[in-house]
Amino acid sequence: MVKPAVRRIGVLTGGGDAPGLNAVIRSLVKTAIREYDISVVGFENGFGGLIKNQARELTESDVVGILPRGGTILGTTNRDNPFHYPVIKGDQKTFVDVSDRVFENISIHEIEALVIIGGDGSLSIAKELYDRGLKVVGVPKTIDNDLSATDQTFGFDTALTTATEALDKLHTTAESHHRVMVLEVMGRYAGWIALYSGISGGADVILIPEIPYNIDVVVEKINARSKERKKFSIIVAAEGAKPLGGEMVVKQHVENSFDPVRLGGIGDVVAKEVEAATGKETRVTVLGHLQRGGSPTAFDRLLATRYGAGAAKLVAEGKFGRMVCLKGQNIDSVPLEQAVGKLNTVPVDGELVRVARQLGICLGD
Amino acid sequence: MVKPAVRRIGVLTGGGDAPGLNAVIRSLVKTAIREYDISVVGFENGFGGLIKNQARELTESDVVGILPRGGTILGTTNRDNPFHYPVIKGDQKTFVDVSDRVFENISIHEIEALVIIGGDGSLSIAKELYDRGLKVVGVPKTIDNDLSATDQTFGFDTALTTATEALDKLHTTAESHHRVMVLEVMGRYAGWIALYSGISGGADVILIPEIPYNIDVVVEKINARSKERKKFSIIVAAEGAKPLGGEMVVKQHVENSFDPVRLGGIGDVVAKEVEAATGKETRVTVLGHLQRGGSPTAFDRLLATRYGAGAAKLVAEGKFGRMVCLKGQNIDSVPLEQAVGKLNTVPVDGELVRVARQLGICLGD
Amino acid sequence: MVKPAVRRIGVLTGGGDAPGLNAVIRSLVKTAIREYDISVVGFENGFGGLIKNQARELTESDVVGILPRGGTILGTTNRDNPFHYPVIKGDQKTFVDVSDRVFENISIHEIEALVIIGGDGSLSIAKELYDRGLKVVGVPKTIDNDLSATDQTFGFDTALTTATEALDKLHTTAESHHRVMVLEVMGRYAGWIALYSGISGGADVILIPEIPYNIDVVVEKINARSKERKKFSIIVAAEGAKPLGGEMVVKQHVENSFDPVRLGGIGDVVAKEVEAATGKETRVTVLGHLQRGGSPTAFDRLLATRYGAGAAKLVAEGKFGRMVCLKGQNIDSVPLEQAVGKLNTVPVDGELVRVARQLGICLGD
Amino acid sequence: MVKPAVRRIGVLTGGGDAPGLNAVIRSLVKTAIREYDISVVGFENGFGGLIKNQARELTESDVVGILPRGGTILGTTNRDNPFHYPVIKGDQKTFVDVSDRVFENISIHEIEALVIIGGDGSLSIAKELYDRGLKVVGVPKTIDNDLSATDQTFGFDTALTTATEALDKLHTTAESHHRVMVLEVMGRYAGWIALYSGISGGADVILIPEIPYNIDVVVEKINARSKERKKFSIIVAAEGAKPLGGEMVVKQHVENSFDPVRLGGIGDVVAKEVEAATGKETRVTVLGHLQRGGSPTAFDRLLATRYGAGAAKLVAEGKFGRMVCLKGQNIDSVPLEQAVGKLNTVPVDGELVRVARQLGICLGD
Repeated sequence: MVKPAVRRIGVLTGGGDAPGLNAVIRSLVKTAIREYDISVVGFENGFGGLIKNQARELTESDVVGILPRGGTILGTTNRDNPFHYPVIKGDQKTFVDVSDRVFENISIHEIEALVIIGGDGSLSIAKELYDRGLKVVGVPKTIDNDLSATDQTFGFDTALTTATEALDKLHTTAESHHRVMVLEVMGRYAGWIALYSGISGGADVILIPEIPYNIDVVVEKINARSKERKKFSIIVAAEGAKPLGGEMVVKQHVENSFDPVRLGGIGDVVAKEVEAATGKETRVTVLGHLQRGGSPTAFDRLLATRYGAGAAKLVAEGKFGRMVCLKGQNIDSVPLEQAVGKLNTVPVDGELVRVARQLGICLGD
Repeated sequence: MVKPAVRRIGVLTGGGDAPGLNAVIRSLVKTAIREYDISVVGFENGFGGLIKNQARELTESDVVGILPRGGTILGTTNRDNPFHYPVIKGDQKTFVDVSDRVFENISIHEIEALVIIGGDGSLSIAKELYDRGLKVVGVPKTIDNDLSATDQTFGFDTALTTATEALDKLHTTAESHHRVMVLEVMGRYAGWIALYSGISGGADVILIPEIPYNIDVVVEKINARSKERKKFSIIVAAEGAKPLGGEMVVKQHVENSFDPVRLGGIGDVVAKEVEAATGKETRVTVLGHLQRGGSPTAFDRLLATRYGAGAAKLVAEGKFGRMVCLKGQNIDSVPLEQAVGKLNTVPVDGELVRVARQLGICLGD
Repeated sequence: MVKPAVRRIGVLTGGGDAPGLNAVIRSLVKTAIREYDISVVGFENGFGGLIKNQARELTESDVVGILPRGGTILGTTNRDNPFHYPVIKGDQKTFVDVSDRVFENISIHEIEALVIIGGDGSLSIAKELYDRGLKVVGVPKTIDNDLSATDQTFGFDTALTTATEALDKLHTTAESHHRVMVLEVMGRYAGWIALYSGISGGADVILIPEIPYNIDVVVEKINARSKERKKFSIIVAAEGAKPLGGEMVVKQHVENSFDPVRLGGIGDVVAKEVEAATGKETRVTVLGHLQRGGSPTAFDRLLATRYGAGAAKLVAEGKFGRMVCLKGQNIDSVPLEQAVGKLNTVPVDGELVRVARQLGICLGD
Repeated sequence: MVKPAVRRIGVLTGGGDAPGLNAVIRSLVKTAIREYDISVVGFENGFGGLIKNQARELTESDVVGILPRGGTILGTTNRDNPFHYPVIKGDQKTFVDVSDRVFENISIHEIEALVIIGGDGSLSIAKELYDRGLKVVGVPKTIDNDLSATDQTFGFDTALTTATEALDKLHTTAESHHRVMVLEVMGRYAGWIALYSGISGGADVILIPEIPYNIDVVVEKINARSKERKKFSIIVAAEGAKPLGGEMVVKQHVENSFDPVRLGGIGDVVAKEVEAATGKETRVTVLGHLQRGGSPTAFDRLLATRYGAGAAKLVAEGKFGRMVCLKGQNIDSVPLEQAVGKLNTVPVDGELVRVARQLGICLGD
């Protein structure tokens, strides 16, 4: 083995949690220590720990038993951007650049490089830190599978599995009661979970952000099923689905404030209109955070493990400013600037959408 | 074997569906035919099929493969009470007694007795039909486990399992994000699902209809955990939980109309108050119909199978006006009048509540 | 609260592991500390740790997160009976009484009472220790549900669930291939897992130790199914099932030696004979240790939690020489001498067996 | 839409069953009928039904509800090669070519093309039929993922999931008892299931056919773990794993005869040697047919659905003699001659094996 480019690294997890984060951490720590003799420091609660110097050494014994566990042993948060950090003075909240603290803490721990496991937001910060001189390696994380620089992200398969199991459960109730069941799943900008789970779960209608829907088409589909004596229907709606010509109906997701009266996410909106137009009892289930939780699937554990090992390799070889990714069957890497910004949305003329249509699934258009 | 009291029976499933309905039907049909040489007619969609004469013969081959399947092959509905049947004339809806049609259809199919699988509502109708001379046997069904005449109802264990699995999933996200997660589960009048799943899923707070909660106590519990450096908390709230001195906050459940703006179920209300008082990010998951769906657990399949066989036995022995039930380890039966009306709620001074308190779980009081 | 009878106790887990052991430990530790101000010492690896003084203090933080986890954090073993402890001198193994070491270690840790979580073997040692003056409380543990002094043991529902899921999986292959599938499940002396999972999983033949089987009857059943054009059959066999008039065919289970050539457990024997007699392809699956593993079901977590709290209560109230148990819906206790020795076997004329027969399931007789 | 190349096709499933077969059939039937106006005839029990003319029309209503179900509604068998069909005369079994019956039955049903869903064996027959003039399209099916012409086969992800769940369960018992647990999984020639599940399930040793193992290396690994105070170990062995310089130890798999005394598969052999050399209790679990059963995972349902649609498209476009396959993210096709013969084995110097080694997993070499 050649001499590794660095001897000591940091790692943090940022953004919403995803099944497989622990598997990445475990693989990174074990590979760094065993294969490259690189020691690892874990920062807690995303960029917050990097700013406030909340950190601890991660040894092999710290990562024992975490492979099958959801969540992240490091903690995570959607807040605490070091370039846009909130400061409250009296009644006023302003945002300041506290990135010097990041470099200070990096220095305190004698860290030479940083592995950042996160989504679009975290990786944008990663890129900015890299531009300012920090040796950074990124690992892509998004439940929604909407990063264009990698073929698949860990956590997605688990979320898809949870959504598909929910559809299996809703099927029996829908059939028994001759109802329309609406399942609202994650996917604010990309409809992957809705499309995949809808096909896998045998949905009749799938609504995704990429294809604005016409409610009349949806209603027509359900009525057509009734005429064929199929008295129930299953609709899967990505949270970011939107009506044709209309605004996206966004459920209130404001991170630091709670919305008491849920203003009806897209699932509620669709259900209301379908019930009014068809006269059929319609029920909504919003999967929400269940999609982020639980033990990762075998696939996600494997992919996460490969990402962790891949990140360790990039670090050891001194290939900074890059993000590990999956290309076909292989682990590869791309520059961080390619990793962010461009969304991986469902191709509306692609094979998957065509397969759905051929099966008779209504896409709302 | 002695001569069975009847040679031909009907069966229907009423009310909301519950995992295990198919197992009851299968067991009833197989046992009636094989053991007692009694033939079986299935009425579709609850009492609706009994009124409109939607029925079909059920043979052994009709029930092949349905044991592990959720839902009911007969269909079901919450509507269509033959003693209070809606008739729409012009703009007006009135309710009439159409029970004579029930007797007519029973006669058309040459049925001598009827097995009614349902909850409090369906069993009340069963009792009324029995009082008017129909030979009736009841089978208890309620997800909520709130029937006092039986130790346990099928479907409850499956709902409990679904709720517990959801808690397992929410745990990882709560831990990773230092959040408060609220899970709203079924239980409008009885807190069994909330209490059992809360203990099984390691909840910190459990709110049930039987114990009005003081939000200050809940907030205090969460703050106390923070001081012990347990930065997340899990709250399970039965949908029928209510604040001390306050009104029950009922989510709009009106069966035939859809409520566009979900007016915040109890989960939302609790979350809002907790977030405001603790400053911690709080998220709500409403399990809803997922609790009614899916393949029944081994326990529920077994209990449902025993109920089906027990109902066949009652019919064969001519013991009408009774409902099968579980007493300790044994299948038994009680008069229908005992079966309805009295709710099985959680004893607030019972062992289960005491165990919860001793573990440090906050009950909100 | 009255003054507890003791201020410091020990706990150990003995015998084969069962899902729910950790839930018992957690509940015992939390309840003892919080409710009764009793401290707890955990002995490792069953009676071995009690003899060799391998022990550690158990605090509330030691039991965080273990509720949903299978196995036991204390470790366990089937060996190390203090009254019959193996000593190897040269080539010879002799057995000696080392129980004085037990009392010595109890004294070293200033323990006043001992909670022993185990099956028939461990509880027999518990009774002997009690007879010699140690304050002992027992908690029943057996996957097989074969203890007569309690209505149900934790771990059983999880094992049953694993067996039923296996039957669901085997069904699809059996159907597709027109095969006979044999599933061998646990149950050396009692057929509970086989009988319950066989009914829940829709088996065609169930063989249990309590009903010696006639292979001709089994073959006849399978041939009868073929004539009805049901071309596959599912057989569940408890490992202790035995042919009529024959010896029990015991798979080599010698605990401290491995048997290289598996001499065919009962599953293999039945399969061989069925294949020879029917000409149908027959396949065997031996579930083995999968039945002991995994996260406990909601039911088992709850029962185990109640047992742990019940044991803490017995200890605090000074009720020694007793074992917690479930009677109907209630946690109760019985003297240790009632707890051991008498096996809880399946009543061959009971309701469960009758239900199975009425469904057309062949019991081999 | 252009005119489809044919108006009526047949379909059969051959070889061992795999989760997802029903999803392929459903997708093929729905797409053929809805999209291309092609009718479909299903042959039963693999090539047997093609030879004996056991067939039925498949309409859309025949495939309702089968998406989540394991097995195949058409039945399947490993026997009945039309070019090598067994005929028994007196005591003698000879093999004859009965392929003319295939062409006759194809003609009787007015079928213009045949879709064959199967593994290496079935696809070889498919190729031979194609060479003799039958219009054939193949769909790859192998649990083992060992077909080189496609990146992945359906059923593999489900088998992997079952194996990983088994490892999760065995972990708790291994830890509790300080045991060595051996899990024998499928993979006679290729170690994909063992390697993937071993990484995903946190195994310590993985033995695959591609890397002959040295038992001393395995023993050394387990002893080294003991020295680090990790007192248990998990070994995953593919059924086709073999010792260095030794013969493959094949469990008796002779399809039409049952082996009464299981002669110890590789799992038993490894366990015996490990127990003898380390003195640690060692237990074996053979997953067997559980890996073929159960509801397909979301991934497998999706892949199978895409294959079914892809096969319908090939047929409609008149592209015969080809097999659908997955290349990267896309559904593609290859000539049948590429599809058979070349095995997809684990690259011994590939990334996956390297990742395993870096994590400290012993590959036995």
